[in-house]
Amino acid sequence: MKYKHLIISFATVLMGSVCFAQTAVVEDFKPSSVNQPDKQYPQVNSEGRVRVSVLAPHSGRVQLDIGGKKYDLKKDTAGVWTGESAPQDEGFHYYQLNMDGASVPDPGSLYFYGASRWGSGIEIPSKDQDFFALKNVPHGQLRENQYYSNTTKSVRRVYIYTPPDYDKDTKKRFPVLYLQHGMGENETGWGSQGHANLIMDNLIADGKAVPFIIVMENSSVNFPRGARPGMRPPGAPAPGQPDAAPGAPQAAPGQGPGNGPRGPMGGFNFSAQFERILIDDLIPYIESNYRVLADQQHRAMAGLSMGGMQTKSIVIANPTKFSYVGMFSSGTFTPTEITNIEAFKKNGKLVFMSFGGREGGAGRIPAAAEEWNKISIKGVSYVSPETAHEWHSWRRSLYQFAPLLFKK
Amino acid sequence: MKYKHLIISFATVLMGSVCFAQTAVVEDFKPSSVNQPDKQYPQVNSEGRVRVSVLAPHSGRVQLDIGGKKYDLKKDTAGVWTGESAPQDEGFHYYQLNMDGASVPDPGSLYFYGASRWGSGIEIPSKDQDFFALKNVPHGQLRENQYYSNTTKSVRRVYIYTPPDYDKDTKKRFPVLYLQHGMGENETGWGSQGHANLIMDNLIADGKAVPFIIVMENSSVNFPRGARPGMRPPGAPAPGQPDAAPGAPQAAPGQGPGNGPRGPMGGFNFSAQFERILIDDLIPYIESNYRVLADQQHRAMAGLSMGGMQTKSIVIANPTKFSYVGMFSSGTFTPTEITNIEAFKKNGKLVFMSFGGREGGAGRIPAAAEEWNKISIKGVSYVSPETAHEWHSWRRSLYQFAPLLFKK
Repeated sequence: MKYKHLIISFATVLMGSVCFAQTAVVEDFKPSSVNQPDKQYPQVNSEGRVRVSVLAPHSGRVQLDIGGKKYDLKKDTAGVWTGESAPQDEGFHYYQLNMDGASVPDPGSLYFYGASRWGSGIEIPSKDQDFFALKNVPHGQLRENQYYSNTTKSVRRVYIYTPPDYDKDTKKRFPVLYLQHGMGENETGWGSQGHANLIMDNLIADGKAVPFIIVMENSSVNFPRGARPGMRPPGAPAPGQPDAAPGAPQAAPGQGPGNGPRGPMGGFNFSAQFERILIDDLIPYIESNYRVLADQQHRAMAGLSMGGMQTKSIVIANPTKFSYVGMFSSGTFTPTEITNIEAFKKNGKLVFMSFGGREGGAGRIPAAAEEWNKISIKGVSYVSPETAHEWHSWRRSLYQFAPLLFKK
Repeated sequence: MKYKHLIISFATVLMGSVCFAQTAVVEDFKPSSVNQPDKQYPQVNSEGRVRVSVLAPHSGRVQLDIGGKKYDLKKDTAGVWTGESAPQDEGFHYYQLNMDGASVPDPGSLYFYGASRWGSGIEIPSKDQDFFALKNVPHGQLRENQYYSNTTKSVRRVYIYTPPDYDKDTKKRFPVLYLQHGMGENETGWGSQGHANLIMDNLIADGKAVPFIIVMENSSVNFPRGARPGMRPPGAPAPGQPDAAPGAPQAAPGQGPGNGPRGPMGGFNFSAQFERILIDDLIPYIESNYRVLADQQHRAMAGLSMGGMQTKSIVIANPTKFSYVGMFSSGTFTPTEITNIEAFKKNGKLVFMSFGGREGGAGRIPAAAEEWNKISIKGVSYVSPETAHEWHSWRRSLYQFAPLLFKK
């Protein structure tokens, strides 16, 4: 009897732990805002947990793979696997399902290009999500364009945001921001999970930003070997390395940090590749097909992660091309890194650096911004609260950056 | 010994059959043109077979689900499942993988909206694929717009194709085609798997079509119960039924054939719902935000499958709104089906009906077209060779239809 009691007591303690673990999940899950039409899963609760549910009657093991962790799901008698993650940060996250070792998209979510594949995404509601909400305000357009690139000898796709009044007054000309995605992403990112168009529509409706055009191209360019213009030989020592952000994605083979052909501060090989498309093909295309103000003072460049590093090296190599520079989760940039700083100083207006608060680089940007203020170019740093190397940091960065552009 | 020989002979015959079955697959597979970047699978061979390959080391059964059939894949020692389908028709097909009973997208393909979900698609190269190929010709734009619909009390998304010279001559006004998708599809279909933009760019470059604007909205509309304008009560008998296409998708619950509120020929409930958005909100939005010729003679409506049936019932209910009518795989349409045929006759210019050659309806459209010619409205029928109720029939239909529009 004694033993039996002991066992029961022990079982009670165990069950208590289990019950505690279960009640810790708040049961207020709602379908994610980026689900496919009429799909009930995935869901998100007020803690930021992601719950997925998928019919897989004959699978032996199904997992939710999000935020670098895999969570085991449980199967019910109908063969439906369900389970949830630990709480996630506010904002957008890529994720996938793992079914008996196969990584597949969740059939319930919309799909987004990231991590070098089209895959599932989820939106954890954020306290500040109003700034990119779809509202009944005047809306700009997101235009898919094809143009011929002489550099790549191919027709390329580019997305262009035009502000709400672009088609109203056909005499007016607009400034332009060239805005880049991160590694493993493409030209669709800013107009989809980035909500650049809605951020701008809302800023313009609130009178907080000057209307401007945004150009979004794919800067993950691998030229055929013979076609790479001015590339350093592979393996050649780099005289300088860009200030890589902690937590930045690892370089893929053939895309790693190297040294650009221009200027001692180097850059990335992939910057040199995209630089030719941007400078020789894309900017001329935009300036002859859109009503833009085609001078340095009305041209900005920005990007996230790899896109910000590309921005930096392209600005270094072309100090008279852009007046406004934005680097989101892309390290630091200081005046001493531009050889021809005098050229940039003539029309340089702004260097903006941001990081998610959970990224290691966040602490280093205020001092770097101060270096710009010392030479009378506006330096601004911004830290996105409680976010990591993710899209919510970059949406907020654009929201902070855009109002600083093209103001007299 | 005798038995042993017999067994060996029998085994040889069996193995012969197996070898024969294997050699019947032509080994000239190439990655599909609609794969994700750098993905080697799915592949297609010269017979039109689809080969998929997916890592799923612990799965018990993986199948390729295409064209209404499931094909078992085979696992190699590395845990990669590979296999192929029977030959498929030329053109685009939706498909999916089935892993231990779970239906999931193939991680290698791009994703398309059809069958009421975002899922995999494959392109079987076609002899005539040049007509929708991406070429170095002047390109129009595919514009994502948001507009407010008073009917649904919400901001809705619409895609708009503008021809290459739309932004060149800002004095010129253009005719407009309202172009609808099929059941289980949405406003992305024509600009993605339909290649409406590339079809038009190529036709215009060849001087075969007058430049016009195409408006692509989502006509799969379910109003909230209280908000449905002029709906017949559920279950009320329908005095007439549209001429449904054999092979047309089954109606989903709540979307089945009913009867429109206008005219004795009826229509679909979902036509009545979309009709209000189109007539009351979308056409006025287009006509006040784009440089269009805003009269019946410069307005066309067309659609595929359900979209063609909606076109028919909307034209019947609004005989002075559109001069050109296109129904792709949507049954037949004859003058006796319009109550107010005199109103339509004043400006009616064209009724175009098409089917895939493998669809049952193909034989019925020439006679229906002849009925229109008898009353001096051009009637045209077109049958797409060797295709079924699929996008290649509809791409070809648009290619045949577009040159007939808006010519003096």
